[in-house]
Amino acid sequence: MSVTAAKGFTAAGIAAGIKENGNPDLALVVNTGPRRSAAGVFTSNRVKAAPVQWSEQVLKSGQVSAVVLNSGGANACTGPKGFQDTHATAEKVAEVLGRGAIEVAVCSTGLIGVLLPMDKLLPGVETAAAQLSEHGGEKAAIAIKTTDTVHKTSVVTKDGWTVGGMAKGAGMLAPGLATMLVVLTTDAALDNDVLDKALRAATKVTFDRVDSDGCMSTNDTVLLLASGAAEVTPEYEEFAEAVRAVCDDLGQQLIRDAEGAGKDIKVEVINAATEDDAVEVGRSIARNNLLKCAIHGEDPNWGRVLSAIGTTKAAFEPDRLNVAINGVWVCKNGGVGEDREKVDMRYREVHIVADLAAGNESATIWTNDLTADYVHENSAYSS
Amino acid sequence: MSVTAAKGFTAAGIAAGIKENGNPDLALVVNTGPRRSAAGVFTSNRVKAAPVQWSEQVLKSGQVSAVVLNSGGANACTGPKGFQDTHATAEKVAEVLGRGAIEVAVCSTGLIGVLLPMDKLLPGVETAAAQLSEHGGEKAAIAIKTTDTVHKTSVVTKDGWTVGGMAKGAGMLAPGLATMLVVLTTDAALDNDVLDKALRAATKVTFDRVDSDGCMSTNDTVLLLASGAAEVTPEYEEFAEAVRAVCDDLGQQLIRDAEGAGKDIKVEVINAATEDDAVEVGRSIARNNLLKCAIHGEDPNWGRVLSAIGTTKAAFEPDRLNVAINGVWVCKNGGVGEDREKVDMRYREVHIVADLAAGNESATIWTNDLTADYVHENSAYSS
Repeated sequence: MSVTAAKGFTAAGIAAGIKENGNPDLALVVNTGPRRSAAGVFTSNRVKAAPVQWSEQVLKSGQVSAVVLNSGGANACTGPKGFQDTHATAEKVAEVLGRGAIEVAVCSTGLIGVLLPMDKLLPGVETAAAQLSEHGGEKAAIAIKTTDTVHKTSVVTKDGWTVGGMAKGAGMLAPGLATMLVVLTTDAALDNDVLDKALRAATKVTFDRVDSDGCMSTNDTVLLLASGAAEVTPEYEEFAEAVRAVCDDLGQQLIRDAEGAGKDIKVEVINAATEDDAVEVGRSIARNNLLKCAIHGEDPNWGRVLSAIGTTKAAFEPDRLNVAINGVWVCKNGGVGEDREKVDMRYREVHIVADLAAGNESATIWTNDLTADYVHENSAYSS
Repeated sequence: MSVTAAKGFTAAGIAAGIKENGNPDLALVVNTGPRRSAAGVFTSNRVKAAPVQWSEQVLKSGQVSAVVLNSGGANACTGPKGFQDTHATAEKVAEVLGRGAIEVAVCSTGLIGVLLPMDKLLPGVETAAAQLSEHGGEKAAIAIKTTDTVHKTSVVTKDGWTVGGMAKGAGMLAPGLATMLVVLTTDAALDNDVLDKALRAATKVTFDRVDSDGCMSTNDTVLLLASGAAEVTPEYEEFAEAVRAVCDDLGQQLIRDAEGAGKDIKVEVINAATEDDAVEVGRSIARNNLLKCAIHGEDPNWGRVLSAIGTTKAAFEPDRLNVAINGVWVCKNGGVGEDREKVDMRYREVHIVADLAAGNESATIWTNDLTADYVHENSAYSS
């Protein structure tokens, strides 16, 4: 399934020896055509890893033949040598596949500031190419894991065409995307400008609203490749909806596997004056460490929600704010509402509704609680 | 010493029964004159507690006769009744002291969304008034503690005049101030406009650059009261420097006592194009949960520093950035610098220098590491 659910794609995932523990660490996804249209969305972090700098150039042509992804090293903040290594990786893929290097996107994830072991990576490309298969999507999804506990894939099949994909990322999930690598494939026959429009519309309301810990990565990449092998050109709206559904599913899988998290928190902001206001308020709530600790402790501490709303520039009157936690309106008109003892927070999903009473717009941001496990996982070793 | 180090002030701190554990929870600070000039700086959170709303009105006149402070309840998000309670508290202080209520500032700290037990608070005001003393500063500082493990006071004595003060606050330290209550007193003979100028200049580079956990409180208040009892009018620069020194000392004490912290992190941004750029970058680094976890784990993870810088709008070129951790330039020109093994992180204070190589401005932000103890302290009970 995964990236090989759609026709016209092969993939492989192998252990090249980049990770010291011997786990799979190199994936290859190849578009066998007939088309090779593509679109990409990249981190908005101004400190961009070498593979992001390279792939941004590749995507300018709107054509991608193959994507090579490695875990075990981000190749970020590695200077000119890091960029040369990315270039050499693309050249190697181009050589073994008989394509042009400028059509090979590169993605990396792992520790920042360390050069990749090219003596292992380049032979790994040959090994992966030899194992390319129409059933290789699962192995590719496994090879891009870092601290992910499970691999993530999703597929939507429509009338004669399919959108499928894989994702990795368990920390650093944040707006503007996160070290999160996502490759989506479709066999629909579409041009790159249509892919670009659908991908941007989808990521804006899915990955971009997944904010596990407020940190933005140097390596985030989301790619969408179309082979045209289904020989079907769907209506734009139907295609865009399928892409959005796959992105939404993968985003949910990322949140559910976020580093050290015990709760998945859905922050829904309603009755905002503008969608931007709703997003700003949602992010402010989602990033409030004190609230995230309270949710971890199953404490419906709505005061911390109001405190977070109060730091934004969104339109609202403090004495008109309402907050519900798991269906109980614990704050009404900026003050004490229903009995907080009524709030049941035993389950993994927690639903916070912030009613700004200022308009008709809304937005939903997903985040996680802040736990001792998160601290442990991000302090006990470099990642 | 504290608020009674300067002549012309009395203070008291008592247990009124607001806190269920019987600890001191009510403080009173009285200006016995001859002057009663005052200035105040308040939270920039738009959700303001009732005592902040009240005290902002009080300070408009530039005259404060007394400050009443309670711990054990923030009186925030408590609606019209909460404001009536603050007003009643000021009226009670005015009555027992024979002053006007409009000259009585009120500060509260504790849980949001709970009404204060006025049946205990108002009799407490009488008890505190009966214990007012020129030696009461220490007891007042103790009575405003919440999760603080120690009380915080500071005094600077100059040629014939003094600035002293007390502070509380161990969590929610953030820009725009934090639930942090600070009362400063001086016996210098100065008008409220001079006090206001000196106080704003001091808080801008001290409390406003103490960012323990990125959360901003609904109750932050910093007051400066002048009695004129020393009958000395210092030069503005000398006075402003003394106020800054006391604020700096108290700010450092807040960081060293931040909830659950194991490290005090000094984030120094140098060679920025503007001071605003330096502050923006400093805050972004100080608020990066992944970096704060790494520091907790004594891991000199400079990639997380670059990643945080990259999310700002400050002027810089990624390949000109340099980062030092405890004196070792682990990142040079945006890539690998000196050997990270050389970094010694065994001690409590950690010093990060981020060199933007974009100008001559600088700023320092103080923060703490992110620890399992922080999570525990903020999840195990409401606060």
